[in-house]
Amino acid sequence: MNQSVPMDQDMPAEASEGRRGRGGRGERGGAAARRAARSGGGPGQQLAYIRRARQPYEVLDEEALALIEANTDTVLEEIGIEFRDDAEALALWKEAGADVRGDRVHFPKGLCRELLKTAPASFTQHARNPERSVEIGGNTTVFAPVYGPPFVRDLDGVRRYATLEDFRNLVKLAYMAPSIHHSGGTVCEPVDVPVNKRHLDMVYAHMRFSDKPFMGSVTAPDRAEDTVAMAKILFGEDFVDNNTVVINLINANSPMVFDETMLGAAKTYARANQACIVTPFILAGAMSPVTVVGTLTQVLAEVMAGAAFTQLVRPGAPVLFGTFASSISMQSGAPTFGTPEPSLVSYGAAQLARRLGLPFRTGGSLTASKVADAQAAYESANTLNSTILAGTNFVLHAAGWLEGGLVSSYEKFMMDIDQLGMQQRLCEPIDMSENGLAMDAIREVGPGSHYLGCAHTQANFQTAFYRSSIADNNSYEQWQAEGEKTAAQRANQLARSWLETYQAPPIDEGVDEALRDFIAKRKESMPDAFT
Amino acid sequence: MNQSVPMDQDMPAEASEGRRGRGGRGERGGAAARRAARSGGGPGQQLAYIRRARQPYEVLDEEALALIEANTDTVLEEIGIEFRDDAEALALWKEAGADVRGDRVHFPKGLCRELLKTAPASFTQHARNPERSVEIGGNTTVFAPVYGPPFVRDLDGVRRYATLEDFRNLVKLAYMAPSIHHSGGTVCEPVDVPVNKRHLDMVYAHMRFSDKPFMGSVTAPDRAEDTVAMAKILFGEDFVDNNTVVINLINANSPMVFDETMLGAAKTYARANQACIVTPFILAGAMSPVTVVGTLTQVLAEVMAGAAFTQLVRPGAPVLFGTFASSISMQSGAPTFGTPEPSLVSYGAAQLARRLGLPFRTGGSLTASKVADAQAAYESANTLNSTILAGTNFVLHAAGWLEGGLVSSYEKFMMDIDQLGMQQRLCEPIDMSENGLAMDAIREVGPGSHYLGCAHTQANFQTAFYRSSIADNNSYEQWQAEGEKTAAQRANQLARSWLETYQAPPIDEGVDEALRDFIAKRKESMPDAFT
Repeated sequence: MNQSVPMDQDMPAEASEGRRGRGGRGERGGAAARRAARSGGGPGQQLAYIRRARQPYEVLDEEALALIEANTDTVLEEIGIEFRDDAEALALWKEAGADVRGDRVHFPKGLCRELLKTAPASFTQHARNPERSVEIGGNTTVFAPVYGPPFVRDLDGVRRYATLEDFRNLVKLAYMAPSIHHSGGTVCEPVDVPVNKRHLDMVYAHMRFSDKPFMGSVTAPDRAEDTVAMAKILFGEDFVDNNTVVINLINANSPMVFDETMLGAAKTYARANQACIVTPFILAGAMSPVTVVGTLTQVLAEVMAGAAFTQLVRPGAPVLFGTFASSISMQSGAPTFGTPEPSLVSYGAAQLARRLGLPFRTGGSLTASKVADAQAAYESANTLNSTILAGTNFVLHAAGWLEGGLVSSYEKFMMDIDQLGMQQRLCEPIDMSENGLAMDAIREVGPGSHYLGCAHTQANFQTAFYRSSIADNNSYEQWQAEGEKTAAQRANQLARSWLETYQAPPIDEGVDEALRDFIAKRKESMPDAFT
Repeated sequence: MNQSVPMDQDMPAEASEGRRGRGGRGERGGAAARRAARSGGGPGQQLAYIRRARQPYEVLDEEALALIEANTDTVLEEIGIEFRDDAEALALWKEAGADVRGDRVHFPKGLCRELLKTAPASFTQHARNPERSVEIGGNTTVFAPVYGPPFVRDLDGVRRYATLEDFRNLVKLAYMAPSIHHSGGTVCEPVDVPVNKRHLDMVYAHMRFSDKPFMGSVTAPDRAEDTVAMAKILFGEDFVDNNTVVINLINANSPMVFDETMLGAAKTYARANQACIVTPFILAGAMSPVTVVGTLTQVLAEVMAGAAFTQLVRPGAPVLFGTFASSISMQSGAPTFGTPEPSLVSYGAAQLARRLGLPFRTGGSLTASKVADAQAAYESANTLNSTILAGTNFVLHAAGWLEGGLVSSYEKFMMDIDQLGMQQRLCEPIDMSENGLAMDAIREVGPGSHYLGCAHTQANFQTAFYRSSIADNNSYEQWQAEGEKTAAQRANQLARSWLETYQAPPIDEGVDEALRDFIAKRKESMPDAFT
């Protein structure tokens, strides 16, 4: 169980690495685990989480931001936020000085902001492979896969309910993807497993088939408890008590409601010092006003109330400012993605999060398209570009999302991770070294010649340009000779070949057995439920 | 001919509108022309060119910019730029104080920068419909279609050589597209017309089938002369002498060469006070160093030399800082698009252009894909997003580009103009009015309800969100019932319906006859040439 390694919560990740060897514990030391991770990290070399070299792009000036914040204070005080069917939550708020009327909590000016002072601006989420631990906050960006779809579009092009096998496959692909820093959570709903038991198989899949950090179950308080219990088996009890090893999606029931289920999960995780992403789930026009600023005002109010609540439960527990920002079609009411207004909401929300001192989650590779076609790509690229430029710290749905989040797509996953690799490159500093200036190359080549064979080009051959795993840049004739494949068809081939060559990261057999025992006992203790 | 309307070059576009009625001249006054333009502007309401509400995104700091500029001065002085086979150009440079050795011009430090002081930071390109005139420079962005492909992918999905009919069709679609502000130039090469005559048909198509501003021929000095002559027929001789009515693509033959053809066209247009876009055509790794900063250094040197040359020819002639920035695959040598490094070059070049006080051209909707699939969309969206955020003034290739510029695609054109509309919306200010703040809506709806029917939503129903012309946001079941169409298939349908409903903008019959007479006489004067 290796619960004998006490860890200081504030110890930097670098300092703690040598002291842990989780997953590959026992005979395997930290160095061996690192070697294994390097060779087993997928077809390409695993990339560390992003440290953005440049400032975020901002769309609101000081005056606008201050006005939104003032309006948010009004919303919090005059309208209030409902914390439904949770007497404990309401009691905590009353004790903290809020005006509680029924389920409705009215917040005196400054209360939420004061409570949020204990929330860390940045924190480490530990992975069982220390090299995969991620820092969330400041100038970092972490990419995690799609979350939540009940359907998959599989490698035979069939759209069907997702299964546990799909879940495992998507975890495996995310493990192998160099540009995915995080294993995510509900990469799809394994609908073939009883609803009250599937969280056990999901959490285990992240633990066993990947060594990247992952997300916990939030669909019921006892499932959150199970997640923490399994984390303690994997990481050791003391380690989990003092470190963040799981990050969890706590959606607001917008407008201005937190429900019992989410509050239960939030309490469980905050109490265990695990991270909550407080996320208003917004389709503007339905769950928020149709304007950018109206949406931002409501989002800020919901996040401030929900995030402050985690600090009431346990001061210092990591909490993120989350948004899921999109709009509806005013013609049909259907959700739309990749359009201008949600991008503006994301930029603005990121600014508000920075002023609040909280790490920020938004965006991803979102689309309403049913297939991995041009619509899917335009919408995903628009969303992703604004997500990165906004300065987002945690990017859920970074790969694999299709059909407004109803479908996890293998093909789309492979296409998206290629785009994530490009975005990561785009965040790197521009090389201002002698080599970057390249004056020798310009002198060597001179007017009317070319750089193809020059010394500088040869010296930089390997790393000069991002190399896409999906794009076909060949001539028309060659593309034709190779079967006129679309990007989706090439992505399909790539996913198949990855799954064929997947190798699980090493894990301590005792830990693995303990996890499987825990799951078996938990499953025995309850009848199957499918709703 | 209406050559009797003298126009002051410096008169603001607004002041000049009432005084001209080009195209719809004679019985039709300016007001009638404007009405006609509104109703004939295409399926949606024609959008004015963009005035960006926000600052550009910048990737280089002062120190980096100053270092690039210093290195550029070194390149200009020590290595020099070749002005090939043009004795007149070399004589002009010698007279200006440059050190001319053979075709190679070495520039004393500061010479180019001094010459560029006469180049306007912003200028108006007039359209025959004054409502379509565009301002190029400062915070404006103007979208123009694809330029140059010898092939089309037609509406039957066939890839074949382009014809004059394709050319006209693309001009018509650009005329109808609300988000296209400019008719462009060689929207495809009409290969069925002799190479020495096709410029006449191309220029005429822009003049007759659109009323938006357009580009001139640059493939030979006498074709540039023909363009100016035709512009004088359309706009009046005095007007053309004193105003910019045509903008022209002057590519550098990178690295560090301007050839006789381009210099001939540049001289013709600059002398006639028409605008030149001096554009190093760069595939980094082939025509420039493999690094971002090395490429920027060479680009700046080429642009400074070429743009300064236009000021030698005619001080004050409008000239743009152009870049066409992409990379090659280091594996195959093939051009790649939508990758991170060219985006960084675009951002950096835009900064250098602003410091030089020149309007800036780069980007577009570029892709290497052979079809309008996800690759095409990802690459185009990546290019377009960085193009806009860089603060680009003139966006050539904004719609229709496929296969690395070898193919003009009808479907891609329709998909791209939808994206351009989104980008235009994204550039607008964020509404900070009472309506934008939406506090009444938040108060009206309150916790646990929804905004679908509230007064604020109803009041903003029409304009709240950008409405895509291509995206399918319907349910899976509805999409299935409608034939499981991809974005490309929907774009195909849309292009067909537009071409069926196209109506030409009105033109004065006398002007039209004079243009056709001019063309007939010019064609009679030369034998057909196909190479």
